[in-house]
Amino acid sequence: MAQARIGLIGLGTMGAALALNIAEKGFPIAVWNRTTEVTRAFAAGAGDLAPAIVPTESLADLVAAIAPPRAIILMVPAGKPVDDQLAALAPLLDADDLVIDAGNADFHDTNRRNAAGLPFRFLGMGVSGGEEGARHGPAIMGGGDAADWARVADVMTAIAARAEDGTPCAARMGDAGAGHFVKMVHNGIEYADMQMIAEIYGLLRDGMGRNAAAISDIFARWNTGVLQSYLIEISAKVTAATDPHTGKPLVDVILDRAGQKGTGRWTAIEAQHLSAPIPVIEAAVMARNVSARLDERLAGQARFGAAPQACPLSPEVLEQALIAGKILCYAQGFAMISAASDRFGWTLDLPGIARVWRAGCIIRSAMLNDMAAALAQDPSRNLIMAPFFAGLIESAIPCLRQVVSQGAEAGHALPALASGLMWFDLMRTARGTANLIQAQRDFFGAHGFQRIDGLDEPHGPWGKLA
Amino acid sequence: MAQARIGLIGLGTMGAALALNIAEKGFPIAVWNRTTEVTRAFAAGAGDLAPAIVPTESLADLVAAIAPPRAIILMVPAGKPVDDQLAALAPLLDADDLVIDAGNADFHDTNRRNAAGLPFRFLGMGVSGGEEGARHGPAIMGGGDAADWARVADVMTAIAARAEDGTPCAARMGDAGAGHFVKMVHNGIEYADMQMIAEIYGLLRDGMGRNAAAISDIFARWNTGVLQSYLIEISAKVTAATDPHTGKPLVDVILDRAGQKGTGRWTAIEAQHLSAPIPVIEAAVMARNVSARLDERLAGQARFGAAPQACPLSPEVLEQALIAGKILCYAQGFAMISAASDRFGWTLDLPGIARVWRAGCIIRSAMLNDMAAALAQDPSRNLIMAPFFAGLIESAIPCLRQVVSQGAEAGHALPALASGLMWFDLMRTARGTANLIQAQRDFFGAHGFQRIDGLDEPHGPWGKLA
Repeated sequence: MAQARIGLIGLGTMGAALALNIAEKGFPIAVWNRTTEVTRAFAAGAGDLAPAIVPTESLADLVAAIAPPRAIILMVPAGKPVDDQLAALAPLLDADDLVIDAGNADFHDTNRRNAAGLPFRFLGMGVSGGEEGARHGPAIMGGGDAADWARVADVMTAIAARAEDGTPCAARMGDAGAGHFVKMVHNGIEYADMQMIAEIYGLLRDGMGRNAAAISDIFARWNTGVLQSYLIEISAKVTAATDPHTGKPLVDVILDRAGQKGTGRWTAIEAQHLSAPIPVIEAAVMARNVSARLDERLAGQARFGAAPQACPLSPEVLEQALIAGKILCYAQGFAMISAASDRFGWTLDLPGIARVWRAGCIIRSAMLNDMAAALAQDPSRNLIMAPFFAGLIESAIPCLRQVVSQGAEAGHALPALASGLMWFDLMRTARGTANLIQAQRDFFGAHGFQRIDGLDEPHGPWGKLA
Repeated sequence: MAQARIGLIGLGTMGAALALNIAEKGFPIAVWNRTTEVTRAFAAGAGDLAPAIVPTESLADLVAAIAPPRAIILMVPAGKPVDDQLAALAPLLDADDLVIDAGNADFHDTNRRNAAGLPFRFLGMGVSGGEEGARHGPAIMGGGDAADWARVADVMTAIAARAEDGTPCAARMGDAGAGHFVKMVHNGIEYADMQMIAEIYGLLRDGMGRNAAAISDIFARWNTGVLQSYLIEISAKVTAATDPHTGKPLVDVILDRAGQKGTGRWTAIEAQHLSAPIPVIEAAVMARNVSARLDERLAGQARFGAAPQACPLSPEVLEQALIAGKILCYAQGFAMISAASDRFGWTLDLPGIARVWRAGCIIRSAMLNDMAAALAQDPSRNLIMAPFFAGLIESAIPCLRQVVSQGAEAGHALPALASGLMWFDLMRTARGTANLIQAQRDFFGAHGFQRIDGLDEPHGPWGKLA
């Protein structure tokens, strides 16, 4: 067999799936795992794809098995394992070999590795879609030099998901950590989308007394409309599932304690550094953190009485509220990406990002087609101001307002939906209330303020008041 | 004149005020500023206090003017200037001399400096209260070794504000960066408190049509009740002020564009690292960031119509809503401090922190007396569960609920108040909606879930659904 087109290190769930995907698309691939048994089992289980797979039992064998100039995908846990692997590869690779970190790296680490003068070429690449996506078509967000991306673009576009119009969902986002940055914001939006769906689910379950099967039907119906998306699709599926042990709906036996792997938190932290408001994502991270504090919530309910109360709303109103919330959340996410593009000099292609997210990834949805189009018209404009989305918001906001208002009254916790609405109301209020804050800050700290008439008189006559 | 009890570097607004305060309390103080003219002008303007002040024109002179073992307060801009100053002092000081960074340092920097093996003793110290506080009694939050704090505790307690019961508002919080950490959270709470007041102000102004004078009267009245605090007091004052140029109320000519110096953002970032939910502070930082985007808000109002609408609420309801919001926000802040104490091994004294905040600092308020008492009963319990505050919340929450509900309906942006309410409703809901999120996460990423019945079956039967 000729030398492989590409190599892959790390045959965990994601790495194995990605390797099979690459082999299936006709690219011979050499693979290596730290534990040789894992490599052997992988090769043994590759079935029809085995001829395209070269299992290797040492790093040196892996390198030898790949046609130079080599390209090697790393799919190992983020952090130190990546640095260790890069160090192990250094003596084995030539200067024009290329290593692609396809794990869930913090983009700061990717920036650091790029700047560290590695003795080979380096790309950071975000891969979204879970195991299923990795196996049959993920969304791929690359970061690094354009010439390095060009060397593997054929592989990446071949294995990526395809949007409805046939475009592969793989692209270079920008320099250095740009790919991992965009993947991070993707995950932040994923948190927010899931939280908003969970809040709507709570209103259906606790406010309107619907059982899981009825809720599943509603999600399934929504999935044929504006909300058509992977997350709504799987919401319909998981609410339809039955627990084999009890015969009850499975969601009803799952504990309401959500985990997080950190990318939502990273997004919130980076947004703070960028002064980019992403309150819906922040609310989603907050809600996951509170969900983990079950003992405190039990004590809270015991002290403050049963929440939440009946809240009669129609599914149609909830659907519109979710449409509004979703647009507001994505608008915040894209604005954050835009801020990062400016800050880091990445010239990120916002419509291109929306296009990459159209398929393969967890937040894929019909709406991303329209977002790509709207961002292409004017990427510098906030998405809520794009005519198509401004129109959707205009008709959907009254429903979001009704849901937040009635939900708050009835004791439903709707942090993400409420944060979206509050951000929207801040963004459409030319005369806000920060004038009082500026007066206070000048009073106690002489921080100064601007005047509405432009007069250059930044301090108040506080002396006689103090 | 004998050698000075203490030295101070940096005669800017805060440093000069602090030096005069120290001199006034009877401690001879040697001062030095990078620009000698500043030092001379300071000494010349010291009036009656001049005999207690030793102006010096070189760092060596400063060091020579202080009685060993020396204590020197640094009051220079945070960041590199502090490191530069520490480096400049290193060759001049003995190992048992003590440098106290009293600036607005990032507590990570204070930790780093502590761990860096400086050739002298080091304390990090947060000082709150603005110029007025520094001059006549700030709140002082020290961090570092207990023995080092003990050496300057006499000076710090002498210059600090005093609570109503006479206790000085100065204490060592814990090791290393603990003082600057507590000061940072103080500032985060300050952001949140100011934002909630601004939201209530907006409801009075735009929802109920009250003019600045009427609003001032309402704030002044509230300042005689449960809300009695510095920020409500100055809210009454600044809304009463008249603009000398136009004769209008001053707040009406101040632009609604709020600045930030970063401590609110730092608090939000650290809370993410600690998985500590502080949604009210996050909302306040978000609102400041949006306030800065005036052009976008103008465009938003042009596109989406004039906000906000009339919203008839009584001042009594608004007062109760603000009481509830304030308790929720402080509860989040103290819980964050508690999380940091565990994470960093600081054994922070929560009631002690509440006591230090009772006077001198920007967030000083009558309520902090009760918080100190409640935290002393059981510092591990969330403040909302302390009987006194649980009672206050129980009676005030219906008003907060009404304000958020009606405000949302009428288009008022109430991000901080709404975030507080939503957090409260999460915290009092034993059965939330994160079960759906866990089902989704397991469906697409095999992340696993817990079951309410404790059965160890962490994955759903998704195979047949996918």
